[in-house]
Parts: sequence; C-alpha cells; structure tokens
Amino acid sequence: MAYSVASLARLIEEFEKMPGVGKKSAQRMAYYVLNLPQEEAERFAEAITDAHSKIHQCSVCCNLTENDKCSICSDPRRDFSAICVVEDFRDVLAIERTHEYDGTYHVLHGAISPMNGVGPDQLTVKQLLARIDGSVQEVIMATNPTVEGEATAMYLSKLLNPLGVKVTRLAYGVPVGADLEYADEVTLSRALEGRRVI
Amino acid sequence: MAYSVASLARLIEEFEKMPGVGKKSAQRMAYYVLNLPQEEAERFAEAITDAHSKIHQCSVCCNLTENDKCSICSDPRRDFSAICVVEDFRDVLAIERTHEYDGTYHVLHGAISPMNGVGPDQLTVKQLLARIDGSVQEVIMATNPTVEGEATAMYLSKLLNPLGVKVTRLAYGVPVGADLEYADEVTLSRALEGRRVI
Repeated sequence: MAYSVASLARLIEEFEKMPGVGKKSAQRMAYYVLNLPQEEAERFAEAITDAHSKIHQCSVCCNLTENDKCSICSDPRRDFSAICVVEDFRDVLAIERTHEYDGTYHVLHGAISPMNGVGPDQLTVKQLLARIDGSVQEVIMATNPTVEGEATAMYLSKLLNPLGVKVTRLAYGVPVGADLEYADEVTLSRALEGRRVI
Repeated sequence: MAYSVASLARLIEEFEKMPGVGKKSAQRMAYYVLNLPQEEAERFAEAITDAHSKIHQCSVCCNLTENDKCSICSDPRRDFSAICVVEDFRDVLAIERTHEYDGTYHVLHGAISPMNGVGPDQLTVKQLLARIDGSVQEVIMATNPTVEGEATAMYLSKLLNPLGVKVTRLAYGVPVGADLEYADEVTLSRALEGRRVI
C-alpha cells in the first residue's frame, strides 16, 4: 500500500486543476495550506466562496463587480464617450495601471474562437452593441494580439462601423525595453509599417 | 477611482501568498475560481478547510495522516528495521515513487537552519530518537543535498551513532539522464569520489 492521505490528495488535486499549476507546485501549495494557522486557512477558504458568491458582471460594461455597476462605470469623472473593449478583467487592470486612459471599458469575457466553440453569443457582444448610442464616439479594440483577439476585433469592427462610431485598434510594435534582436518578424514588420515621424 | 473589487482583490491576495505564485498567476487563479460552477468553488474551499482540520502527524513517523498512524507505519509488509529520514512529506512521495524502498520513514518537517531560526527543537528529532530501539538496524539520511539538509544529516548522525545504529546517507552523483557538461563542479567531484567498479 503506497502512502496516501485522502484529504491531502484531494487538496493537491484541486490546486492542480488551476491554470499553470503542475503536480509539484500543487504539492507545494497544499503543504503551504497545511502549515497555515487554522484561522488563516479558514480565511483562505472563505475568500474563495466569498468571491464566488459576491462577484458578478457590471450591468453596463460586464466587468467584474460586487455592485450593480462597477467602480469605473459609476465614476462620473470617466469619459463615457470612449469604450475600450478587452477580453477579461485582467486587461482592465493592465490598462488602468498605465494611468493613460480615462474612458470606460467593455469586457467580452473571452475572444471568438471557433476551435474552442466560442462564438459571439458566448461573449458580451450584445451588451456592447446596446451601449452604442449617440454619446459614444470611439471604441478601442484592445483584445489580445493573438489570432483569436484579432478575429474578434475584426468581427466587432464590422458590426460597429455601420453604427457610425469610430473603431480603433491598439498599435502594434516592438515592446518598450525589449531587444530588437529578439523581436519576431511579424512584430518587427508591424513596427516598421506603423513607424512615425519623430 | 481605480477599478477594484474587494472580494476579488482579497482572493488574489490569498493566492499570491502561496509559494511560487506571483501577481499574474494569482490573478489567473482568481479568474479560474470565478469561472468555476458554484458547487465546484465550494468543493475547492472545503478541500482547504478539510485538509487543514483532518490532517495531523503520524504518531510514529510524524508524516501527514488522517489517522493515528500513517498508511506506511500501519502496513505490516514494511521493513521496520529501516528508517529513512526526510525533510517533508513530498520527499516521502518522491521515494515511494521509486518502488525501491520498503522500510519506514521519519519526517522532520524541515531542516536545521539557524539563519531561519530552525533548531532541532522545531523538528521531530525527539520523536526520531525515541524510535531507536534494538529493532532498528539502519537510519538513512535522505535530507536535501543543501547546506541545511547536510547540516541536519550530520547533526542527526552524531546523535544516532552512539546508539549503535548504522547511519547512511544518500549517494551523491550526476543525475541520471543529465548532461555531464552541465553538472556543477561540486556534484561532479562528489560523483568522482563515489565512483564504483562496473
């Protein structure tokens, strides 16, 4: 009989299901949990159920929130004439960190990917279209620069253009601080295409 | 006002406290949890509290178990004349995977590390010494090949040798399947020292 502890194996398994977590990391995490003081382990468990039960989508932009509207959609200092379309809430966090954007967002919760069975109906496309009235001037496509993100941006721009709204896409180019030597050809040719007078 | 959701931020924070988990991974994990079906999220939370409340140390070898004795110490087919001393339960799992060892274990729950304030009293050294009676023939030091693991093995061997028990240490050498070119000097010189006639 090999060594095994049912509840430990189950905990390791739960951690292993998470994205980017392998067997070894899951064991390390389980060990960490076992060494937590009782009340901290309970707080950890509570954080999981709490987040799950309290968080839902903002009624305007579909971003995650505990309220009816998220903190951005309910902030009067925001510029409601601009909507930045992103794939998920982490992209919102990333753009907010730049402190360069004061418009609103629209969170698609994914990208169109026929291979994975994700079509426009699985995303919050309807809610985005419903937001386009006379007040919206620009929709910025900030989906990922991947095949899926690209396809999604193209698809949405075709829907949005006839509505008379300006649709823009994030610029492609070499990442700041990176070494040209390591830039892939596609990125580099996009950077050349998009070159600007200085 | 930046975008923030209290319960989401708290969940990300809980994940970020885990070993080897950075900001990005923690966000990914939180996102994974939010997308779980309600009952799976509850099962995840339960696995944490469950493991924490059910698991304690085996009364013999100090390994993790839900019972009084772990499954190895309560298996009559095991060879109780050998004790393999390891730092934690993951090392037990690693050695069990070899299927080459049928003795018992002793889990120290760490290694001596004065820098981190870990002395023999914080480990299960007393419990190990209590196990040494006439029936134990050999104690195999399988602590990590690190400074701390080494110091712990040396410390324990000094305590155990006077008790008339044979104390051995895992062999050092080049890892199987590795490239000699990439082996560090210390490992390589240990491998030379330990060379055997073939």
